[in-house]
Amino acid sequence: VKKADASAVAAVKAALSKVLQPNQLSDDPEKLRVYGHDESDMGDFLPQLLVFAQSTADVSLVFRAAFAHGVPVTPVAARSGKSGGSLPLYGGVSLSLERMNKILELSPEDLVAVVEPGVITGDLMKAADAVGLFYPPDPNSWEFCSMGGNIAENAGGPRALKYGVTRDYVLGLEWVLPTGEVLHCGKRTIKGVAGYDLCGLFVGSEGTLGVATKITLQLIPRPRKVMTALVIFADVLAAARAVSAMLASGLLPRCLELLDDVSIRAIDGRGFSFPQGAGAAVIAEVDGNHDDGLLLELQQLSEVAMAHGALDTLIAQDDAQREKLWAARRVVSTSLRAMKPFKISEDVAVPRSKIPEAIARFKEMGARLGLTVATYGHAGDGNLHANILFDSPKDRPTVDEALKQMMEITVALGGTITGEHGVGYAKRRFIALEQGEGLISFQKRLKAFIDPLGLLNPGKIFEPDA
Amino acid sequence: VKKADASAVAAVKAALSKVLQPNQLSDDPEKLRVYGHDESDMGDFLPQLLVFAQSTADVSLVFRAAFAHGVPVTPVAARSGKSGGSLPLYGGVSLSLERMNKILELSPEDLVAVVEPGVITGDLMKAADAVGLFYPPDPNSWEFCSMGGNIAENAGGPRALKYGVTRDYVLGLEWVLPTGEVLHCGKRTIKGVAGYDLCGLFVGSEGTLGVATKITLQLIPRPRKVMTALVIFADVLAAARAVSAMLASGLLPRCLELLDDVSIRAIDGRGFSFPQGAGAAVIAEVDGNHDDGLLLELQQLSEVAMAHGALDTLIAQDDAQREKLWAARRVVSTSLRAMKPFKISEDVAVPRSKIPEAIARFKEMGARLGLTVATYGHAGDGNLHANILFDSPKDRPTVDEALKQMMEITVALGGTITGEHGVGYAKRRFIALEQGEGLISFQKRLKAFIDPLGLLNPGKIFEPDA
Repeated sequence: VKKADASAVAAVKAALSKVLQPNQLSDDPEKLRVYGHDESDMGDFLPQLLVFAQSTADVSLVFRAAFAHGVPVTPVAARSGKSGGSLPLYGGVSLSLERMNKILELSPEDLVAVVEPGVITGDLMKAADAVGLFYPPDPNSWEFCSMGGNIAENAGGPRALKYGVTRDYVLGLEWVLPTGEVLHCGKRTIKGVAGYDLCGLFVGSEGTLGVATKITLQLIPRPRKVMTALVIFADVLAAARAVSAMLASGLLPRCLELLDDVSIRAIDGRGFSFPQGAGAAVIAEVDGNHDDGLLLELQQLSEVAMAHGALDTLIAQDDAQREKLWAARRVVSTSLRAMKPFKISEDVAVPRSKIPEAIARFKEMGARLGLTVATYGHAGDGNLHANILFDSPKDRPTVDEALKQMMEITVALGGTITGEHGVGYAKRRFIALEQGEGLISFQKRLKAFIDPLGLLNPGKIFEPDA
Repeated sequence: VKKADASAVAAVKAALSKVLQPNQLSDDPEKLRVYGHDESDMGDFLPQLLVFAQSTADVSLVFRAAFAHGVPVTPVAARSGKSGGSLPLYGGVSLSLERMNKILELSPEDLVAVVEPGVITGDLMKAADAVGLFYPPDPNSWEFCSMGGNIAENAGGPRALKYGVTRDYVLGLEWVLPTGEVLHCGKRTIKGVAGYDLCGLFVGSEGTLGVATKITLQLIPRPRKVMTALVIFADVLAAARAVSAMLASGLLPRCLELLDDVSIRAIDGRGFSFPQGAGAAVIAEVDGNHDDGLLLELQQLSEVAMAHGALDTLIAQDDAQREKLWAARRVVSTSLRAMKPFKISEDVAVPRSKIPEAIARFKEMGARLGLTVATYGHAGDGNLHANILFDSPKDRPTVDEALKQMMEITVALGGTITGEHGVGYAKRRFIALEQGEGLISFQKRLKAFIDPLGLLNPGKIFEPDA
């Protein structure tokens, strides 16, 4: 794949002008700049043409027109991704799904929702909640990320510990292949095994195998009660060991979130104050249908934590206190960003017994390289957000070395380079650490089978062939 | 694909004799007969050669040797499948995985198990239970079906209502492609999104895209308490409406199993007696960590059921009573089989609001065609086992018409032709009722990409090209 030349893009624009509305096309440099950047901080890659799809047919038309002229297409919606999945590395067309933002159906009878890809995840959550239902996946960015992006990246979140990730809720997809063909995969029933599980293949394909234009989701009855505790520790290793012990206790909280000392300092005082001596904290959240049982579970978890060195357990007394706690958790990422001019956020995941060792080795590695490493995240499922903070672009070579070492440590512990953000552009240089040559080769051949011209979101997941 | 000729099979046998042990190969007619039949009652299809794999390398060798000579290979283990997935329609090699039956690892620290494909599902359940963990998927045949078959068919079971199906527990697979290449897909962590979700694609591929030789599974903490109730109804429509209402009540039982009048008659007195007037029954099971809460949930479910016409609710008072109830549920299939000489078991699934209508229409259709239709199954997730009982092979044309009408009714209600058994050979003629031409064509191309010679488990899922 090469960067599209201007005349090919002009030809695509001319072709699409005949079939789309004028307000669906833009090459206004201001707008192009906006779509050349996302939350990955991987730099700016400007598209040459911006197209706003309003229907499934539009998506199909865009693929056909662009690929007929050899122009790459990169799908985009909320640009909240952390792995650079929506960056148009080779220019060409950025295809925005953000105007396809309708909740098409919400069925309390069937416990099913059907949404367009531009629907904001939080809007779906609220709509489900309003009818007594629950859409569990809760990526940190749920207030502004979109369901299409959640599908592309197979987004996770704190509640994955108990409830799984986006994929676990996808029953069916209307999917546009790079050829422009539209497939209706999956089902509307909870179970269903007719044919190959193409939804399984497409969810998490990072915008490289096609685009979801309609998403059928399973919802579940909303648990009637939720209870949350903050467990305070003197240091992060004690906290990590306590998390392992809490998981081994036989209870299944819906979240077990870890904050290390740097993360605590970053958010302390921002609407929430930590007690003196707090060097780490764990947010434990349980849900169910009965207050008594939940309180008992939190007490049992607290006892395990206290036996592993916890200093104190504070149980949120009402929804306002709960919300304050989670609001603090949600601003960790932005607060860390405010501490230093530059921040790289990683999302490795390790087997649960390896959480303490992973955190210890990341800290040791940071100290050795003279970098500030903040680790927080979904400790309950081993998914750690290890953040490297730095002062200036000239630190970048050291940071790159640190990232490489972090990935090597993770893989050596039996973990994965990405728990929920995706490989995208940010981590494609690391995938060969985790996956063998045969596996990568098979995936590249599969990509070529589905996208023979290699023009859909090129340069993502795998290193380009030399 | 054509039936392999004897000389090609002889050549495969000769080639494999050089690399495998003598006891790994058999063409003893008695044995071939055993492997030519499964639980689908779709007839006998004898393999010409039986090979028992003892390692991943063996599987790879068998694929390479057989395909070099144009001989089809059909994977097989417990032969408990209901869709004919293990029947060697074109003869050739039946590749048995049953000797690869070791639980390789069970890690309470990581909540992970690693098993070979020949492990009996029930053995994994018991091994997990012994260390306080839980493997939830519970196909009815768990006492004798094997994990490799569960992976191939993406097996479900009653607990899928709350806990999902096999796929939801598969973290990683060692997978042998038809080319003989071995892929290590997936991860050992709960979350992980590096590369394409090949496990998602392979689970449920019915032995047509390759074979799992090592399976990494997620386990969860075992819920401490389980409580089970039997709710009695006068007729099945009342029961079905009550199931819908129970689901809408905001509680999430782990099972909601339905038995109609024919099913009740089939098992009444076989270790369990139903009260007078019972024309239908629902088994409701809840789990959690506290007795008080569970009892409350069963009472709430019972109240909803009583408000929808239930006659009585009996709560199992101890594990022995619970086990008796489930043992009765498990023998429904074999007891129905004992009622008439022939039985076809279907496993359609419909959106949950359509359960009453589906059952009513199946009954009406059976009456119109003069056939006995028994409907039972996982009503909570809409997965209904509709069974047609008949006296003689000469009823087969009527039965076939009934099956076709059942599938048409199901699809018209927004359902699927197979909730958990797979399409296999038994239902390939119906897949075009549910899936469009484009979707089927894409899947056939995907199959050809992965199995270019089309020799792995040929004739399954899709109708052969004319």
